[in-house]
Amino acid sequence: MNTKKNNKGGKPTTAKPVAKAKNPPKQKKVKVSIKKQQVVQIKSDKKKEKKVLKVRFLGGVGEIGKNMTAIEFGKDIIVIDAGITFPSDNMPGVDVVLPDATYLEQNKAHIKGFVITHGHEDHIGSLPYILKEINAPVFGTKLTLTLIENKLKEHKLNDVSLNCIRAGSVIKLGCFSIEFINVNHSIAGAIALSITTPVGVVFHSGDFKIDFTPVNGETMDLNRISEIGKKGVLLLMADSTNIEISGTTMSESVVKETLEHVFGDNINRRLIIATFASNVHRLQQILDLAVKYKRKVAFSGRSMINIADAASKIGELYIPEGLIIDVERTKSYKDEQIVIVSTGTQGEPMSALTRMASGEFNKVVIGKNDTVVISASVIPGNEKMIYGVINNLYRLGAEVIYESLEPIHVSGHACRDELKVLHSLVKPKFFIPVHGEYRHLKKHARLAESLGMKEHNILIAEIGDTVELSSDTIKFGEKFSAGARFVDGVGIDDTDSSVLRDRIRLSEDGLVTVAVGIDELSLEFRTVEIVCRGLVMSEVLLKEAKENVMQALKKVDIRTLRDEEELKGIIRRSIKNYLFKATKKNPLILPVVLVI
Amino acid sequence: MNTKKNNKGGKPTTAKPVAKAKNPPKQKKVKVSIKKQQVVQIKSDKKKEKKVLKVRFLGGVGEIGKNMTAIEFGKDIIVIDAGITFPSDNMPGVDVVLPDATYLEQNKAHIKGFVITHGHEDHIGSLPYILKEINAPVFGTKLTLTLIENKLKEHKLNDVSLNCIRAGSVIKLGCFSIEFINVNHSIAGAIALSITTPVGVVFHSGDFKIDFTPVNGETMDLNRISEIGKKGVLLLMADSTNIEISGTTMSESVVKETLEHVFGDNINRRLIIATFASNVHRLQQILDLAVKYKRKVAFSGRSMINIADAASKIGELYIPEGLIIDVERTKSYKDEQIVIVSTGTQGEPMSALTRMASGEFNKVVIGKNDTVVISASVIPGNEKMIYGVINNLYRLGAEVIYESLEPIHVSGHACRDELKVLHSLVKPKFFIPVHGEYRHLKKHARLAESLGMKEHNILIAEIGDTVELSSDTIKFGEKFSAGARFVDGVGIDDTDSSVLRDRIRLSEDGLVTVAVGIDELSLEFRTVEIVCRGLVMSEVLLKEAKENVMQALKKVDIRTLRDEEELKGIIRRSIKNYLFKATKKNPLILPVVLVI
Repeated sequence: MNTKKNNKGGKPTTAKPVAKAKNPPKQKKVKVSIKKQQVVQIKSDKKKEKKVLKVRFLGGVGEIGKNMTAIEFGKDIIVIDAGITFPSDNMPGVDVVLPDATYLEQNKAHIKGFVITHGHEDHIGSLPYILKEINAPVFGTKLTLTLIENKLKEHKLNDVSLNCIRAGSVIKLGCFSIEFINVNHSIAGAIALSITTPVGVVFHSGDFKIDFTPVNGETMDLNRISEIGKKGVLLLMADSTNIEISGTTMSESVVKETLEHVFGDNINRRLIIATFASNVHRLQQILDLAVKYKRKVAFSGRSMINIADAASKIGELYIPEGLIIDVERTKSYKDEQIVIVSTGTQGEPMSALTRMASGEFNKVVIGKNDTVVISASVIPGNEKMIYGVINNLYRLGAEVIYESLEPIHVSGHACRDELKVLHSLVKPKFFIPVHGEYRHLKKHARLAESLGMKEHNILIAEIGDTVELSSDTIKFGEKFSAGARFVDGVGIDDTDSSVLRDRIRLSEDGLVTVAVGIDELSLEFRTVEIVCRGLVMSEVLLKEAKENVMQALKKVDIRTLRDEEELKGIIRRSIKNYLFKATKKNPLILPVVLVI
Repeated sequence: MNTKKNNKGGKPTTAKPVAKAKNPPKQKKVKVSIKKQQVVQIKSDKKKEKKVLKVRFLGGVGEIGKNMTAIEFGKDIIVIDAGITFPSDNMPGVDVVLPDATYLEQNKAHIKGFVITHGHEDHIGSLPYILKEINAPVFGTKLTLTLIENKLKEHKLNDVSLNCIRAGSVIKLGCFSIEFINVNHSIAGAIALSITTPVGVVFHSGDFKIDFTPVNGETMDLNRISEIGKKGVLLLMADSTNIEISGTTMSESVVKETLEHVFGDNINRRLIIATFASNVHRLQQILDLAVKYKRKVAFSGRSMINIADAASKIGELYIPEGLIIDVERTKSYKDEQIVIVSTGTQGEPMSALTRMASGEFNKVVIGKNDTVVISASVIPGNEKMIYGVINNLYRLGAEVIYESLEPIHVSGHACRDELKVLHSLVKPKFFIPVHGEYRHLKKHARLAESLGMKEHNILIAEIGDTVELSSDTIKFGEKFSAGARFVDGVGIDDTDSSVLRDRIRLSEDGLVTVAVGIDELSLEFRTVEIVCRGLVMSEVLLKEAKENVMQALKKVDIRTLRDEEELKGIIRRSIKNYLFKATKKNPLILPVVLVI
């Protein structure tokens, strides 16, 4: 298995705002000036472009989240997925993280379309941002497009060309012919892609699992995949999320059985079920059981209401008339007549379930006759929040059913044995594992080897890598400008790593502002004020710090200073060591100079 | 099962700096003035004190960590354990969290001793802080005391009375007689306590598991526990950590088998094994295998070196002569001659393993011929850090063996079936589950019920609760001042919730300092300077904000202002809305007024 020599020991690129290509190729260079005064070198090698297929990784490799891959041949580019990811602990204040799509913006004239595999945030979330810069049609199945449309409306983007496709259909975009293939996943309308390119077929699995007893919809189209495999596939890119889990993922029907037990065992109690709004099949099962057990259903949480509404309008969710009531009205029913279906499976602070658990949700007051079901798994990093919610629900006397106790949720991703089925059917010449942290990609590469692939036919790519393919070769091409962009308040990308460093330091060590007043006429230092936040300083400490600054300023002749920055440096140095000694903290020191 | 009526729906108390008793009992009150100008009411009811045993929960219930329980009868108090916990995400800048031991400090004259069940941080970590305030002897087994002694030395506490006990021995402290009983755990020298009090026997399990094939030491003393149970136990308090896991915890010997395979399968490679330094039995297994496979051992990481040294001095760890070499010298050996035993199982940023993985550890450079074993489980909340380390090790070409792949670690805590054994042997009249979040305590209570205990004989206590026992009753007594204290830089407890709120806001929304200069003579506003950190403001934005402040100040006559705070309020209000509109952020606004 090949791994890139120039990234040995490198840290994951995802935490960096924008990872630049370290060694731009020494070829004809075109300087392109783009917004934000960046100058990026773009390779222009027409000879090569005519021959090789380029797969460019903008996100979703070396990380889980913000999936985005571009397929490029000559002047034709298609983009597979455009997701987001949520900020990690070292990105305080950041709302959302996008793939840095600079490369696509620079080549927007060549983009024939965005092909979206399904409607989860890590596949559609960055579309509203990127479609502001790039005018290209979007292709996806019915539910996928409905979710995208809602999102675009929120961003007041009304003129995007949205094109509904079905599993089985084929579209042509530039020199590419793209076939959509039904797969199973934790959302309806998920598809894989078989992309016929001038050098061969590229098969992209999207997020998938093989569910032989799906609740709605059909089993992954293994027959069609087998046919495609027989004809010959040049490159497979496949989901690595569950590569560490042996065997196969349980069917969605298993959840049905557990839910049926929950309804049966709690016949006199109120039921509150939290689940992902986009898991329309799960919602359908809950609605079906509500009908069977003669309960009314109340949706709680904005996204739950919106998605249920949208899915029912396009026929992906069947809601019998009179089943749904407003959550406000549940109080006029008996407990045994109600199921509340809620958001908040991850303990999100503002979600319906979290507010119920902390007693801050007037519409639903939790008590001893409630059984709360959390029909989802805990996304790593959310453990403390969701267990906090569970603890609070228990404190209020409710029963709680969650994943560590019952099979109340199943994954949407293929485990090892399902991946083996995919590899065996597709029989690709080359393989690039996608959708996983480095450890997942590495293990997926090993799995391919264990099935007989040659090590040198497998590449592990990371963000910013270009992989070049001909009909019988695969290799790394040039690196391109890629990485992450932060959405933070109203700004995109304004927040760079220095702002984040400041925020982290502010949160750990606090801040000391030192204001110094200078007399305009005499140019003498007249007064010093020190104020601190996020740090505890006693009166004595404040006084001593002030004296330190004054002592330092006494030695300064303003007329000899180069500029204000030099003065600020003197102020900083005058108390830095003192503050550390006194508080064992390194607060940000923020000098302000006033000339009056 | 009884739960307290007055805490329904309450949030966990652990996140609050100091939880005060809400409804002090209406009885004879004694005002006690303590440091920090707090006035706390202490109940003084001599009649009752003579009859009831009080168990006071200072930590370790409703949370995992900072275990501390006081047992009180009349004027005698003993304290079981004195742990710390590590700060959660909503405590930026905090180094360590201690139980608030105000109650003990107020009653320090009555404290007969600290009885420590074992040497993990969540059982001994707060001793150096509390022993500065309270002069009482400490009791523990050999390794426990060695670890405590190291800790006290770091804090320059040299005059503490440390008393070494063995499993099987009995000590008298005031009216209490305390017997120490051998249990198995992931550290040597762990004990349970059987405390004979004037109203009956209190049995405290400590952290435990039942290991029938322990590597060193002996199996938990089930025979003695059975005898104690036969004679009659009034109250059982038992570890709830693994209550959600069915069956039994694997024996430490299982790890031995896996490690043996690792040594056997990697005969030509260098081995790097990360483990908890305090797990002396695990260390012993690694040393034994190193001898068997003719490898030298190098310890890496300060705590690893210190603990191995201390454990070997007291005979808990057998290190053959010539086995250990300095990590610097490993380079002069072949890969197959070396095992490096390292800290860093949780991906701690400064640990040896983390620095190896990021290529910043000169003494050990990771390469393709390394097999890295992480012999520990991931503590919830550390996932991102440790997986980051694993991803980087893979990037460097190393093989990595960790828990999700192999049984390379076993828990130190009893699972459900082991807990059933304990309950069945002890057969207590009353039961209080300890060492767990609320959900764990609730489930442990259910387990006791399933074994035949009456619901009203089981209490779920939280921090600040007193439980009162006579020889045939159990009930909640008064609440007392308890909660958490923060160690932050050099200060303890200075950092209160308002400082933490500031820090969180600084980290999310940044800060804007507005310095205003006032002419001393004319009392006119002369100048405004605005500086921001952790927030992005363009030149235009800064200019407009400045104008807003100046406009607002124009309307102000300084002579009519009550004080500086009023002026600061005007400054804040003059840009608050403007900043939110422009940035969708709510930065802290810090006005500074200079009179020159």
